[in-house]
Amino acid sequence: MDATQDPWTGPTVGEAGELVVLDRIVRRLPAGTPELGPGDDCAVVAAPDGRFVVTTDMMVHGPDFRWAWSSPEDVGWKAAATNLSDVAAMGAVPTGLVMALAAPQDTPVAVLESFADGVRAAVDALAPGCGVVGGDLSTSATFTVSVTAFGDPGGTTPVLRSGARPGDVLAVSGELGRAARGLARLFRDGVDARGEPSRAATVSSGADSDPDVGRQRRPVPPIADGPAAARAGATAMLDLSDGLAIDAGRLARASGVTLAFDVDAVPDGVALHGGEDHGLLATFPAGTALPGGFRRVGAVLERGAHDLVRGGAPVPTTGWDPYADWDGAAG
Amino acid sequence: MDATQDPWTGPTVGEAGELVVLDRIVRRLPAGTPELGPGDDCAVVAAPDGRFVVTTDMMVHGPDFRWAWSSPEDVGWKAAATNLSDVAAMGAVPTGLVMALAAPQDTPVAVLESFADGVRAAVDALAPGCGVVGGDLSTSATFTVSVTAFGDPGGTTPVLRSGARPGDVLAVSGELGRAARGLARLFRDGVDARGEPSRAATVSSGADSDPDVGRQRRPVPPIADGPAAARAGATAMLDLSDGLAIDAGRLARASGVTLAFDVDAVPDGVALHGGEDHGLLATFPAGTALPGGFRRVGAVLERGAHDLVRGGAPVPTTGWDPYADWDGAAG
Repeated sequence: MDATQDPWTGPTVGEAGELVVLDRIVRRLPAGTPELGPGDDCAVVAAPDGRFVVTTDMMVHGPDFRWAWSSPEDVGWKAAATNLSDVAAMGAVPTGLVMALAAPQDTPVAVLESFADGVRAAVDALAPGCGVVGGDLSTSATFTVSVTAFGDPGGTTPVLRSGARPGDVLAVSGELGRAARGLARLFRDGVDARGEPSRAATVSSGADSDPDVGRQRRPVPPIADGPAAARAGATAMLDLSDGLAIDAGRLARASGVTLAFDVDAVPDGVALHGGEDHGLLATFPAGTALPGGFRRVGAVLERGAHDLVRGGAPVPTTGWDPYADWDGAAG
Repeated sequence: MDATQDPWTGPTVGEAGELVVLDRIVRRLPAGTPELGPGDDCAVVAAPDGRFVVTTDMMVHGPDFRWAWSSPEDVGWKAAATNLSDVAAMGAVPTGLVMALAAPQDTPVAVLESFADGVRAAVDALAPGCGVVGGDLSTSATFTVSVTAFGDPGGTTPVLRSGARPGDVLAVSGELGRAARGLARLFRDGVDARGEPSRAATVSSGADSDPDVGRQRRPVPPIADGPAAARAGATAMLDLSDGLAIDAGRLARASGVTLAFDVDAVPDGVALHGGEDHGLLATFPAGTALPGGFRRVGAVLERGAHDLVRGGAPVPTTGWDPYADWDGAAG
């Protein structure tokens, strides 16, 4: 589809029928090189390590994205990127994705094509060679996509949240706070007079071309840094999906340690509490040459009274709860 | 939860919050014996064969189930059973499931607990030892569950749809038409005066205790017969999800053959065209001692003018299209 064309036009999936839609999506998705791809009851994927890692994540119209703020390509990109990031956070190399998609019957076929283009763009950019090896197409009153991603540990021990030891260095790869700044910009400038998400307001306010909004729509997780961290001897690692503070709190509790942020490296505010950056947080033995884009943000201490401290003060481990915090709006 | 208690009561997921709900679900799900289970960014699953098979399927409130007709336990059972069946249809042994679930915020927590009980019951009955190794919990206006299942080929070659050869025997394991008879009963007797799905009508009409309705709610795929067929040398196999005729048509086209049903073994009607039984259709070299519950239903012929014939007459390969056929109702 021409990128300049509005995907919200043309024949709907209800008019086209499942087989036509499926054919038009599958040809746009990255195929990868599975031992067997779509078309049978299962795909067959190589697991040369004798183990594989697996993660699953669902994105739902309303709580997870708004069409007024994200294009179908953005949603496809994000669905792929966030799952690839979870694979990387185990120190594994992504080897494949399966994807289930349910769209309302009045959704234009071009929206699903554009979604598939976004998946392909993300995989090409972040995990070239990985493919969508299988899927399921359904219908729903609510646009919903569920992605499951696999990875190959490649002979390294999968890196868990629980392995950080006092004396380790705490390090981050990837940006902190940009996705949250982008979301805040959308909530401020991308709404109409009643506060509802608005495509027109997003464009007229300039939010549409704000690079932080771009990161909110299309996170760029440092996928290759996951396996690099595992090879470098990372003792613990996780994906920064809900924000540095809440995710670091998880690592601290799983490892039974306290994490101390360097005041200079981690400014208070959105860098600590903003979610959806999908960088990597890892701990390394002291003296490790930090691989790839990792930079020091603190140190691992013996377990104290708090999960996290910064400049001697405790840091609250707060974040997003989809059940408690979603306001029920879609847009 | 007491099985006699109505799950549609009590605190909602919106009131309880994600962490409480997650804890109450995870403890009810079958754990299996993964190398690493829930709690990290990924699970780790053994793949001793050096390959694994994988399938994914989404079940959506409305097109795929109605709460008036199925309990949360029924929906959990079916979500697990249908995916396990796809793994078996490759000749593989199920080794794990991941599950993403999105529920409206006003859904009682007991509904999700009951759903988890159904998953556990299905896995215990159909694939003991298999576990739910990871998942994702979200919120949506539409109750949606997405399951991805894996399996181990165990040294056998995964059985595809494309390997049937003229001269092979065509065989089925599992029942034909019962799930469709159950669904027809529900559409006839389980509705109110306006034709809407009704729990009260389902009970008062006796449909609730109809064994065919039970099969529609809780299919019993012959999981162990999948690997048994692979070991016995099955040349092609698939899961009977959409009905014998449409699924046999797929096998015929993928293999480039015509399939001839024995008139006595396959009566016309619901046995041919009813879906959701989740039995197995397979082809074996002539003379093979059919394993497990497999019984002969026909033979594989050189490719002729039709995909399927029965008593010399062509059999139409018709079935269910979720985009074209769903009427938009939920209930």
